[in-house]
Amino acid sequence: MTNVERFLNQVRQSSLGMKRLVVVAPHDEATLLAVEHARKELSIDAVLVGEEEKIVAAAELAGVCLMPYDVVATYGDSAAADCAVRLIAEGKGQVLMKGLIDTSILLKALLKKEYDLRTGRLLSHVALLLPPQGHGYYLLTDAGMNISPSLYDKQQIIENAVDIAHALGNDNPNVALLCAKEKAYDKMPATLDAVELQALNLAGDITGCTVSGPLQLDLAVSAQAAMMKGCKDPVAGNVDIFVAPTIEVGNVFGKALKYMGGYVYAGVVVGAKIPVVLVSRADSEQEKLLSIAMACVCTTSIPMEAGRMMPEMESA
Amino acid sequence: MTNVERFLNQVRQSSLGMKRLVVVAPHDEATLLAVEHARKELSIDAVLVGEEEKIVAAAELAGVCLMPYDVVATYGDSAAADCAVRLIAEGKGQVLMKGLIDTSILLKALLKKEYDLRTGRLLSHVALLLPPQGHGYYLLTDAGMNISPSLYDKQQIIENAVDIAHALGNDNPNVALLCAKEKAYDKMPATLDAVELQALNLAGDITGCTVSGPLQLDLAVSAQAAMMKGCKDPVAGNVDIFVAPTIEVGNVFGKALKYMGGYVYAGVVVGAKIPVVLVSRADSEQEKLLSIAMACVCTTSIPMEAGRMMPEMESA
Repeated sequence: MTNVERFLNQVRQSSLGMKRLVVVAPHDEATLLAVEHARKELSIDAVLVGEEEKIVAAAELAGVCLMPYDVVATYGDSAAADCAVRLIAEGKGQVLMKGLIDTSILLKALLKKEYDLRTGRLLSHVALLLPPQGHGYYLLTDAGMNISPSLYDKQQIIENAVDIAHALGNDNPNVALLCAKEKAYDKMPATLDAVELQALNLAGDITGCTVSGPLQLDLAVSAQAAMMKGCKDPVAGNVDIFVAPTIEVGNVFGKALKYMGGYVYAGVVVGAKIPVVLVSRADSEQEKLLSIAMACVCTTSIPMEAGRMMPEMESA
Repeated sequence: MTNVERFLNQVRQSSLGMKRLVVVAPHDEATLLAVEHARKELSIDAVLVGEEEKIVAAAELAGVCLMPYDVVATYGDSAAADCAVRLIAEGKGQVLMKGLIDTSILLKALLKKEYDLRTGRLLSHVALLLPPQGHGYYLLTDAGMNISPSLYDKQQIIENAVDIAHALGNDNPNVALLCAKEKAYDKMPATLDAVELQALNLAGDITGCTVSGPLQLDLAVSAQAAMMKGCKDPVAGNVDIFVAPTIEVGNVFGKALKYMGGYVYAGVVVGAKIPVVLVSRADSEQEKLLSIAMACVCTTSIPMEAGRMMPEMESA
């Protein structure tokens, strides 16, 4: 069994049963194929919201039969997004999925007060990284959404990722705050944030995980490197969640492993009451399936809190 | 033949013959073993500068015979650094190598006006990345020295790396300016610098290479991703040199490939008239050998220019 199959099995066992995707503007073959694949592999259900003619045309091109799906006809991107989010607000779906529509339009609808789908959290991107060999996986955040998060933003980014780790069955994930140095250094602001965040974890203000930093990547992943550098940190050599100091670090890190290291890469946007799946044409079928699976798992654990503004948005 | 052997053969063929290392404070086994390995594998010569008793003790522990080496006895780290740099200024060596001494002490000596070893360039770190399978290599800069380089710093960082690519036989390397977005975006300063640097290259102010950016990593390395995203950039899918916007990006990128992707990682500090080898205990013997080989190649091409201040220094 491959690492990917093992992960998908784990997801299937965690009561995916009744999950329903609400797909916004599935006007392209790639989105419909991903949904169809997820329906067959993960036994999920889906509602397709968008322009009926475009959905029908894309389904024909993709060779996907629309019979198993509810199709809700809307006109225009904003209307599709609003309709989809309303369906979710009414309990008619648990996961939002982006089709051929701008991410910003989708998230704007998701965060409208009237739908009450906000939590107290910032929205953030969490990537899943599966090594080509061996067991297990890593989470990486934020590789696609928050550009240059503040200390408070980073706290919420950590909390969002820790919730996913919990949903995936890891009760106390190890969180590494990636930096280019092992100690506080005033010319590297990321190291100062890392010291603060570790202190917040020790003080009980960030819970359900062990936070450590500043850490260089070698110490986070390699027990041998940690030993040679005399580093006895509990997270060293045993990391579950990588926290990048900026979007450039997260983006380059995730893409290095995907395009140069053979890792499988999936991702989801969390922080609202429901997760959002954003798959791109360049993702493999396997990666799209994993992104949907990951989102379905997230619906079991995302906490409900009070309103919060929209973050700066970037596409992953 | 492995990719590493192929690279070393290329180095051996590029007239390494008469190269001489000047090693500062080789007071530890690891440094002496690396020098001995390089002497046997690359036919280079070395002068050992430092405290004689410590050198002799380390040589005994390492099982290295000191007969083939000149040993110059000094007392204290600053004296060792000064003596080594003076030997180089007098033409008695072409590569400086750091032993058990602070990088800052070594570089301070190197940049003293009296030795006339400065060029007009910023010092910068250039890493060599060899994929575990296949042919070829990448250069990555700056993963270990300049924290948050300005536009002008980045220009010099590029020029330093391009000189190395030339020395390695690549007459016109493709340079990718890594960002988290493909176009200029005012909330991501790295994208604005990238636009400027590409323009400087087109205007003939950065020569001997093709500079492109802003580029995400997937487009830089994957012709397929570039095609799917409709990107027709000449560097896309065909990169030789990665330029990181900050030290965090470069550091995490290089370490991800080394510790999670199985790449072989070597590196050298360039920008002075002679290159500096900094190997760490955590490097493999192969990696240390490659770092020394890379530095020896660099001595054929580093340009000579007028004085320039010292950069902010970080250890790789």
